[in-house]
Amino acid sequence: MTHAAALGDLRAFAEEADAGLLTPVSASPLVAALTGDRAVLAAILAVEAGWAAVLERAGLAPAGSAAVVASAAEAGRYDLAGIALRAQGGGNPVIPLLADLRKNVAALDAAGVGATKAVHTSLTSQDVLDTALMLLARNTVHAVLADLKGTTTALAHLAGQHADTLCVGRSLTQHSLPYTFGLRAAQWFQGVAAAGRQLENLEFPVQFGGAAGTLAAGTVLTDGSQATPFTLADALTDQLGLAPATAPWHTNRLAITSLGHALASVLDAFGKIAADVLFLSRPEVVEVAEPRAAGRGVSSAMPQKQNPVLSVLVRSAALQAPQLAAQLHVAAANFNDERPDGAWHTEWPALRQLLALALGAAGHLRELAEGLRVFPDGMRRNLDLSGPLLLAEGVTAAVAPLLAEQDGRTGKQQLQHVVDRTLEAPPSEQAAAYRKLFREAVPAAVVSDARLEELLDPASYLGQSAEITRRILAAYPEFDSTTTDANGASRG
Amino acid sequence: MTHAAALGDLRAFAEEADAGLLTPVSASPLVAALTGDRAVLAAILAVEAGWAAVLERAGLAPAGSAAVVASAAEAGRYDLAGIALRAQGGGNPVIPLLADLRKNVAALDAAGVGATKAVHTSLTSQDVLDTALMLLARNTVHAVLADLKGTTTALAHLAGQHADTLCVGRSLTQHSLPYTFGLRAAQWFQGVAAAGRQLENLEFPVQFGGAAGTLAAGTVLTDGSQATPFTLADALTDQLGLAPATAPWHTNRLAITSLGHALASVLDAFGKIAADVLFLSRPEVVEVAEPRAAGRGVSSAMPQKQNPVLSVLVRSAALQAPQLAAQLHVAAANFNDERPDGAWHTEWPALRQLLALALGAAGHLRELAEGLRVFPDGMRRNLDLSGPLLLAEGVTAAVAPLLAEQDGRTGKQQLQHVVDRTLEAPPSEQAAAYRKLFREAVPAAVVSDARLEELLDPASYLGQSAEITRRILAAYPEFDSTTTDANGASRG
Amino acid sequence: MTHAAALGDLRAFAEEADAGLLTPVSASPLVAALTGDRAVLAAILAVEAGWAAVLERAGLAPAGSAAVVASAAEAGRYDLAGIALRAQGGGNPVIPLLADLRKNVAALDAAGVGATKAVHTSLTSQDVLDTALMLLARNTVHAVLADLKGTTTALAHLAGQHADTLCVGRSLTQHSLPYTFGLRAAQWFQGVAAAGRQLENLEFPVQFGGAAGTLAAGTVLTDGSQATPFTLADALTDQLGLAPATAPWHTNRLAITSLGHALASVLDAFGKIAADVLFLSRPEVVEVAEPRAAGRGVSSAMPQKQNPVLSVLVRSAALQAPQLAAQLHVAAANFNDERPDGAWHTEWPALRQLLALALGAAGHLRELAEGLRVFPDGMRRNLDLSGPLLLAEGVTAAVAPLLAEQDGRTGKQQLQHVVDRTLEAPPSEQAAAYRKLFREAVPAAVVSDARLEELLDPASYLGQSAEITRRILAAYPEFDSTTTDANGASRG
Amino acid sequence: MTHAAALGDLRAFAEEADAGLLTPVSASPLVAALTGDRAVLAAILAVEAGWAAVLERAGLAPAGSAAVVASAAEAGRYDLAGIALRAQGGGNPVIPLLADLRKNVAALDAAGVGATKAVHTSLTSQDVLDTALMLLARNTVHAVLADLKGTTTALAHLAGQHADTLCVGRSLTQHSLPYTFGLRAAQWFQGVAAAGRQLENLEFPVQFGGAAGTLAAGTVLTDGSQATPFTLADALTDQLGLAPATAPWHTNRLAITSLGHALASVLDAFGKIAADVLFLSRPEVVEVAEPRAAGRGVSSAMPQKQNPVLSVLVRSAALQAPQLAAQLHVAAANFNDERPDGAWHTEWPALRQLLALALGAAGHLRELAEGLRVFPDGMRRNLDLSGPLLLAEGVTAAVAPLLAEQDGRTGKQQLQHVVDRTLEAPPSEQAAAYRKLFREAVPAAVVSDARLEELLDPASYLGQSAEITRRILAAYPEFDSTTTDANGASRG
Repeated sequence: MTHAAALGDLRAFAEEADAGLLTPVSASPLVAALTGDRAVLAAILAVEAGWAAVLERAGLAPAGSAAVVASAAEAGRYDLAGIALRAQGGGNPVIPLLADLRKNVAALDAAGVGATKAVHTSLTSQDVLDTALMLLARNTVHAVLADLKGTTTALAHLAGQHADTLCVGRSLTQHSLPYTFGLRAAQWFQGVAAAGRQLENLEFPVQFGGAAGTLAAGTVLTDGSQATPFTLADALTDQLGLAPATAPWHTNRLAITSLGHALASVLDAFGKIAADVLFLSRPEVVEVAEPRAAGRGVSSAMPQKQNPVLSVLVRSAALQAPQLAAQLHVAAANFNDERPDGAWHTEWPALRQLLALALGAAGHLRELAEGLRVFPDGMRRNLDLSGPLLLAEGVTAAVAPLLAEQDGRTGKQQLQHVVDRTLEAPPSEQAAAYRKLFREAVPAAVVSDARLEELLDPASYLGQSAEITRRILAAYPEFDSTTTDANGASRG
Repeated sequence: MTHAAALGDLRAFAEEADAGLLTPVSASPLVAALTGDRAVLAAILAVEAGWAAVLERAGLAPAGSAAVVASAAEAGRYDLAGIALRAQGGGNPVIPLLADLRKNVAALDAAGVGATKAVHTSLTSQDVLDTALMLLARNTVHAVLADLKGTTTALAHLAGQHADTLCVGRSLTQHSLPYTFGLRAAQWFQGVAAAGRQLENLEFPVQFGGAAGTLAAGTVLTDGSQATPFTLADALTDQLGLAPATAPWHTNRLAITSLGHALASVLDAFGKIAADVLFLSRPEVVEVAEPRAAGRGVSSAMPQKQNPVLSVLVRSAALQAPQLAAQLHVAAANFNDERPDGAWHTEWPALRQLLALALGAAGHLRELAEGLRVFPDGMRRNLDLSGPLLLAEGVTAAVAPLLAEQDGRTGKQQLQHVVDRTLEAPPSEQAAAYRKLFREAVPAAVVSDARLEELLDPASYLGQSAEITRRILAAYPEFDSTTTDANGASRG
Repeated sequence: MTHAAALGDLRAFAEEADAGLLTPVSASPLVAALTGDRAVLAAILAVEAGWAAVLERAGLAPAGSAAVVASAAEAGRYDLAGIALRAQGGGNPVIPLLADLRKNVAALDAAGVGATKAVHTSLTSQDVLDTALMLLARNTVHAVLADLKGTTTALAHLAGQHADTLCVGRSLTQHSLPYTFGLRAAQWFQGVAAAGRQLENLEFPVQFGGAAGTLAAGTVLTDGSQATPFTLADALTDQLGLAPATAPWHTNRLAITSLGHALASVLDAFGKIAADVLFLSRPEVVEVAEPRAAGRGVSSAMPQKQNPVLSVLVRSAALQAPQLAAQLHVAAANFNDERPDGAWHTEWPALRQLLALALGAAGHLRELAEGLRVFPDGMRRNLDLSGPLLLAEGVTAAVAPLLAEQDGRTGKQQLQHVVDRTLEAPPSEQAAAYRKLFREAVPAAVVSDARLEELLDPASYLGQSAEITRRILAAYPEFDSTTTDANGASRG
Repeated sequence: MTHAAALGDLRAFAEEADAGLLTPVSASPLVAALTGDRAVLAAILAVEAGWAAVLERAGLAPAGSAAVVASAAEAGRYDLAGIALRAQGGGNPVIPLLADLRKNVAALDAAGVGATKAVHTSLTSQDVLDTALMLLARNTVHAVLADLKGTTTALAHLAGQHADTLCVGRSLTQHSLPYTFGLRAAQWFQGVAAAGRQLENLEFPVQFGGAAGTLAAGTVLTDGSQATPFTLADALTDQLGLAPATAPWHTNRLAITSLGHALASVLDAFGKIAADVLFLSRPEVVEVAEPRAAGRGVSSAMPQKQNPVLSVLVRSAALQAPQLAAQLHVAAANFNDERPDGAWHTEWPALRQLLALALGAAGHLRELAEGLRVFPDGMRRNLDLSGPLLLAEGVTAAVAPLLAEQDGRTGKQQLQHVVDRTLEAPPSEQAAAYRKLFREAVPAAVVSDARLEELLDPASYLGQSAEITRRILAAYPEFDSTTTDANGASRG
């Protein structure tokens, strides 16, 4: 086998290094298109092409050069795997890509305008890579937000639809108080919307500092022109639709860690929902079920299984985000000198993986939220498992003040005694036992039978569930498209 | 030995479980006073006392009860270690503390107003503990910000003072371009100020949801009064000086993870400075030194050593923060049900440790920044190590356009050849070699000797160092007390 | 207030910095006694006293000095909080402790033997602190293993007792196949025993290198004597009951990270059990329950709740261990020079917290395992929820080979069709629907009714549950004290 | 555009999802070949083919079927990106791959032996994926060990070659004591060899439990044959060259976390070396330099730069490993039920990335170690920077016992005073100042001038550097191929 053929083979391996086989949550064409290596390449090239346009408009590159660079900057022209391999030489992918870009620019410069002079002039590779990753992040975040708002809109709908659907609240795995499924959906909504708002408010700053962050080359370049390095940076910022930066942030990585935190926060909120759905859709619980789809949830061995795969995938993403966000802080805390000796390199895969996980999970969760099957009967059945004891807090609050102290025991203690003795009965007999014991402790003159049954009705002890739901939805109108669409009529 | 005596011994151990012996960075009385267990106890008690006051004012607790509760809520009354031990029963410290608080309230209620009715009524332990930790966090963050602004003020001063102090910029450990120490200080300032502003903008919301987040008990409590659970929550918020919450956030932990991220970001910025100082104060480098203090930096074995202990301690904190911030995300992603089955418990130590590390490190860094010894001579000596090659980028930018293509090589390539051949000489001879080779490649008619020397003067290639410094300082006026003090005159 | 009084107050705060209020899982006197700051102090003093004994025996310290040092090395003599505060000066607690130790030795050296010459001679603070933490770790690990073996013994007992107790296996939250509770207990056993064996096989090496790891001072010290630094190190190793080290490991931290990994692995195994118990004891499931104890599992608001607090606490520890183990690797990867500039300091709190979490959780899990209440009826009820579909894999395996291809569909496909159509019926009717559909698809001549019922009996499809259980228990005899006690008769 | 064309486009994206552009440390054909998605696919297929062979040999699959399956199991036949996309349906890649495998087997079964009956019979997807990842890990670990031993051999060589090369030991960034570069290389060797030995001792167990870990389907399959599920598992273990497992380890992930720990430990040791080389090759230090190679270490902006790219890449890997190892523990602690609801999925990318980072870094470090350029002159220059103070510990040890107490000050205190006063002089004058002050404090009768100079010779204070080096190399003979090659003569 010739050396060239061998290289070909090796490249084939590299091209298939990671097509998503081991990360099913994010193995989608959309995720790959927005966060994959080809997208990274395209973003780097977009920065270089944008820069050429800025230079030409400022009279700092030959007329006509920007068009040549733009043409050369089509991502399809480049050998991705080859550039990845050559990136080891300088430790980053910009360097080999630039060599190829310059070749392409020279080859395409048929008119001989000297277009290579517009390539990368006065930039450093960190300017380009940081800015390119901000571009890529912005595009991906937009896509995440689109799915995220689909999810919140669906959850808002569930919150409204199930405002009166009784279920049981749980804490530390045990039944605590009556609840509504509408409030649960509203709390899911709040988690996603609050994290989504944080994500939406992120800024994606351009990076522009030159080799050491002094803009020295840019200063030489603009010497004698009307431009300054700052006006060039502003022009590039506009060109790319990014946010301006006060100053180079080569070594201050708050923009990166905050992006990581915002993505992890979104995945936290997703993970909370997934954890709940995974429990609620268990065969012993059956309060909700994932939407069905052909081929989804199947098992390689068990023909009858219907796995809640959407939730499983979302949870798998949520469990990975914390370590990735931590990686970005580890990098930031080690950003020594004017460019660090390894920390910068650790940001790239962590940031990209966070983006991919968030986008992949956002799609799955949206499908889940929009198609969630809700079983009020199941909720009621589980609610009834705890019987009257579930209302014990409410009964105590309502009845204790009416009771006189007896044998040195307060009303509250007398009622606690009723609970304690009820717990001695088997679960199936607790409903009857409680009523009997209560009647022994509290005469009908104080609390009538009718009043007792009223107090034992879960629907009577929902507190502010409806109002809390209303407040949550009202706080995030931009995350509920049904309230903001068309003529903006509110759900009411 | 009697059982009581044994318990006494065991309690003694618990009291000394962690006095800071293994975390020197945060082993200070200030840190202990603001974040220690006694402070946690005091914060919990402050919430209960605040609540009693709110209830009494709303006519929902007997007149006079708030004063009794306030008196009983002095933290010194409680057996800290005993409560910690008993916290295992219910899994959180509020439960045993409440038992003791109620006893104390009853004992102190000499007038028999029924003050125990004002204790914890309609609250759940998560309301109290979440709110108490927000109180504790707010107080600690205020103290962090005080030291942090001392640091930024000192850095701003250094930035001004050393605007013209030449040094060398470094990337991937190697010399890159001429730099100024003023710009380095300004970038340190930017890192700390940006993270500080994020910290300053944090909100510390009150938690108020009752047992399942429905405010059910609060609804019963306020039934028939003019109050609602929401007005009570607002009153508590005012009483404690916290931020209002849209709704209960029992299971949506963005406030917690964002606090963790903000603290980690501050420590990132601190860590970057510490890493730089640790390098710059090495015996081979000697560009700066830590301030001296009696007894600091000593070694148990080596009598001559002067260790940069402040930086070491700050770096040790910065290296711990990422894992702690990750812990908070791990918790948030696992907040199942209406209160989770373990995740909540993992927030407490992580949050407290982050607060302690940030406050401890803030104090050390302030001392470092305020007393940093700067050695311009050392900076110049190191700058000169790289000789004319350090200006190669600038020379190329200025000269390449003036050179005609020769033997198919562009001007840029001709100048790269000069650099490549210079690198073949030993470092000490490169200054001469470069000039000789340059003169061979570029005739004096194109670039005169004087112009060459001008190009090789590091001070001629500082780009926008001064303007970048100015922009950074102008962007964070509230972090430079010398510009905002007194009559607010700017540094200029 | 006088300065002295203020210092007294501040010290009081430090003493209460962390008594365990926020870490209920490890807030126990045993944990504090083995891992608290007083224990660290005692371990450091034990190393110094051990060293004095070694020196005296080697004739390198005055006769009688070891006894004086031993007396001075009582941990109770030292002001813990004061030493913690002073540790900031040199960045580690050995330095101030040594100053106090020397004073005490001098004061106690009534006979004037010159006992201070036996203190710390030729050591460096890293020798002492690394060795002391190994001592502390060894003692704590022994205690962990004691509780851990109590747990495994109890699990082995459950495995035997419930070898025939039918339950359902679950994967991705859904019912997969019939299972036994005995096998579940055996798998819990395997997890804990395998991690326990790893922990038991750990070595705790002495550290002994001197200031830079060259044993230079030790070489001077032993010059002219029969001892060498290596023989002294061996003597210290024996004295303390630690493992010998090939060479100083100042900068190679595999012993530390491996300890962290082993502790995290134990907590992984604990966490898996806790997660299972938390689910299995839910009111909708009720297959097991935690043992009851007075005052445990109570709520501050809900009188009827019985929280599974043991599992919650164990899970809270398991969720914290990964980040702590990661912290030790972050340190190890940053151990620059002959002693690093911050990384070493980050090991101490992480290592101690891992030890405390493991020991605290081990106690709770032991109590859980020894008192677990098991409800075979609940298990059977849940198993029956899935009806005949749970046996579909087994039916297919047994019946498909007997079926001829029909309309181009294999036997397997025909049986999948039966399953698919059964799933269209409501859960409560699936048992009947399945039998009807099966009979339509498979004539009685091929599979008789009796054979069908046999195939649909969960007890008929347990595979090797019993044999797997036997193999697991046989593989870890040292973790099942009932098999190894007394006359060593095996469970059989 | 037609749907098919769109799918084609989308697939193209997926194929380029990650070719290594953002992870230069592991962007190599070797890494891709051993750890890439195609390798995962091949490993899965190898398990299925191995299983078919086992079944056929046991008479449980038709004669001739194994050959058909083996032919169908060529990885090149499969559409990687398509399988990755379809893996979302069931949440793992085995399910869609099996569908394609079965089609290929049927198509290739020209003789109609019924070869599909040999595919996956009685297995579950976790059996296959866990086993496949063990295969992949074993192959990658072998490759890591090959490079790692190249590194240790090179380091052993440096240790021998530079046994007498004086340099300075550093702690907390400051000079501590004289050192040798040979000992530094030996300590690097020890770190890598100890971690390598741990890696070499890992076991890669086969997974074999069936759908719920009971081997139920395997029991039905082997019913009536001479085989049992255990004999089949043993046969598969032999076939694949893996380690046997006591029992299914579906939910006990110690094998996975231990693999993660071992890889992270290797990267810790690599990272320690990289950190040292990055410092030692700085322009201010110049004690070592990385080997040069065409195109390596270049900058996109600065023509003169020679970046230590190998170390930068290795450090970038070392800084990522802790979070990945933590991810595996997070998974293990959440392995609920008989197969978990998301945790398993998080292991795959973390494990693969650890393997890729370790292999990529191993190659770079080997190149670094084999080509490291060592500059003894630079080491001596830096050693001399600290002058006589560096020997202060040794002088004190040798001289203090000779001095009488004076004015209540011990000999040690008198000598500390000499050091303290020396430190008041500027560094360049300390050599003279120390001698002068020493002579004032210690009469020549006690210490002659010649003896003083002897004490101040760094070579006189190397302690056991040579012996420690010898012990380290002797402890890991299998990691020094020059001692074990050929006739096994030791270095001596």
